[in-house]
Amino acid sequence: MFEDKSQELTPISKLGEFGLIKHLTEHFSLSNASSEVGVGDDAAILSSENKKVVITTDILTEGVHFNLGYVPLKHLGYKAVVVNLSDIAAMNATPTQILVSLAVSNRFPVEALEEIYAGIHTACKKYNVDLVGGDTTSSNSGLVLSITAIGFENEDAIVKRTGAKPNDLLVVTGDLGGAYMGLQILEREHAVYLSNPNMQPEMEGYDYILEKQLKPEARTDIKNILKELDIKPTSMIDISDGLASEILHISDQSKVGFRLYEEKIPMDSLSISTADEMNLNPVMTALSGGEDYELLFTISPNDFDKIKNHPDFTIIGHAVEKEDGNFMVARGSNQLVALTAQGWDAFLNNQSN
Amino acid sequence: MFEDKSQELTPISKLGEFGLIKHLTEHFSLSNASSEVGVGDDAAILSSENKKVVITTDILTEGVHFNLGYVPLKHLGYKAVVVNLSDIAAMNATPTQILVSLAVSNRFPVEALEEIYAGIHTACKKYNVDLVGGDTTSSNSGLVLSITAIGFENEDAIVKRTGAKPNDLLVVTGDLGGAYMGLQILEREHAVYLSNPNMQPEMEGYDYILEKQLKPEARTDIKNILKELDIKPTSMIDISDGLASEILHISDQSKVGFRLYEEKIPMDSLSISTADEMNLNPVMTALSGGEDYELLFTISPNDFDKIKNHPDFTIIGHAVEKEDGNFMVARGSNQLVALTAQGWDAFLNNQSN
Repeated sequence: MFEDKSQELTPISKLGEFGLIKHLTEHFSLSNASSEVGVGDDAAILSSENKKVVITTDILTEGVHFNLGYVPLKHLGYKAVVVNLSDIAAMNATPTQILVSLAVSNRFPVEALEEIYAGIHTACKKYNVDLVGGDTTSSNSGLVLSITAIGFENEDAIVKRTGAKPNDLLVVTGDLGGAYMGLQILEREHAVYLSNPNMQPEMEGYDYILEKQLKPEARTDIKNILKELDIKPTSMIDISDGLASEILHISDQSKVGFRLYEEKIPMDSLSISTADEMNLNPVMTALSGGEDYELLFTISPNDFDKIKNHPDFTIIGHAVEKEDGNFMVARGSNQLVALTAQGWDAFLNNQSN
Repeated sequence: MFEDKSQELTPISKLGEFGLIKHLTEHFSLSNASSEVGVGDDAAILSSENKKVVITTDILTEGVHFNLGYVPLKHLGYKAVVVNLSDIAAMNATPTQILVSLAVSNRFPVEALEEIYAGIHTACKKYNVDLVGGDTTSSNSGLVLSITAIGFENEDAIVKRTGAKPNDLLVVTGDLGGAYMGLQILEREHAVYLSNPNMQPEMEGYDYILEKQLKPEARTDIKNILKELDIKPTSMIDISDGLASEILHISDQSKVGFRLYEEKIPMDSLSISTADEMNLNPVMTALSGGEDYELLFTISPNDFDKIKNHPDFTIIGHAVEKEDGNFMVARGSNQLVALTAQGWDAFLNNQSN
């Protein structure tokens, strides 16, 4: 659970609820003009500066969203923030505040929470986001992290899931499938460790995909890149559950269908070779793996020239009429494969527990 | 767990995560002008209408904050909303939106979540609050409810914990200790039930305190009453952890001390008689019981005449210089008893688990 195994541990009950919140949040300062009052009152006070409020929340539970057997607590705190910031980025808005609620069993000492908050702090610094509130309490078992993220944005800049039109181009940032392959490596090596604790895990050479899984980044940079290119997407979503699932969400809410070209899906060579090594179809890891936290969006075909050679973006398909449905055009043929939402699903994954 | 024991139950996995969210939230409509986009995108979009954003979050965990052995799920959903609305009311603001995150183990069927959402829906209707987002996921054990509440308020109306001055009057709404006594009755009868499931619980005659515990209300009405009286409190907090603990919070953040008059603490006669019946000191249940969700605030002594005979308010003490400390003046004597924060503490209560 800890990077330093030799430290002395403090039971949470020693500090009590208020002492604990104070202890964990005292190193957080407010840096955004919109953060007027943070932790310490009944509620935080934020200034909207005449913009719209964009707000989202995600809850992460131990054993479902993360396994503390191989996820360092610092990374967990970091990632829990990032997945929420990614949702704000997916509205083409900039996140500025978070609220963090934590429920922990007494098996966690204060030092464990310090590690989580160290990761939260690192994420706040990196993304210039202020921690303005939250709640810390005990649970009878396990660790639950619930984070709310807020951004303020001019109405005309905000991008919803609803604006895609037939013939719009479908664009994705970065590359896909890496986070899922990183998870496969972590689970494989964790299983080896459990069967023989003296075995050294074989993590070497997998750095890129391990980092995509353990320390993903939110694409808060994309908003500015698009602005510089003078592009406003017609719809946008972040890829948390796998490319196929996200395409179906935009399809559903924009009332269009999509054609996705298999050969265009961007994947890192390490993701592909690791999938091959584990007898997985690399394209399936991109379609259904999830947790990439890249952005998926549609743009007008008139914007094609602005984006076509940009290193951050890949055009992977286009929108069609709703009744033409959602299909992937298979590599090297014109065969159409129906897109289905086999994305990562917290309830289905957990059925065997 | 259910009021109707005969219904057929549906496993959550049958609906999946997105199906479940859709199913649970489809009966919620948006009624506030500030709610522009609710559930269904990466984030909700709210309009601040040039006001400040007031935002708070609370996390409730099974076995710590509630016991499903005697808390109906509908009441749980209702109360989870109310405790957050109470925090917004304590800023002298009006709540308008909530986000609800739920983590549940697979032992809960869909119908259990429907009951929780029915309670949430009732609270939303009663307080004219819109559900605009959230997350629903599985947990490996137990139920965790994390709610974020939002309000928009003019800057000059917002009341923080920081503005109390020496000689300000200390005022409380309603009566105290009832929720704690209701909990004692529920726990007593639950223990009887566990030792003999054929015994009928003796709940008759305890209605008022059972309702204070199971279905508390947020004092969102107080803002308007104070406005009509032309009173702006100098500081305010809601009573979630017990009167003593809340007085110490205002003391700490306003840099004043307090004198609390024991004989002035408002208590319902049923709370007092039940405390007597259970050999508890009634005043201690008000000081340390918590969960009353009444408002505690300070006002300028110049406002005394405006409030002195108002049925919603009781003047229970006054602020003094910081160095004079926080004391209760005992009934029928001038003896000073130091106020200590022995309020309900989720970590301490849970130590034996």
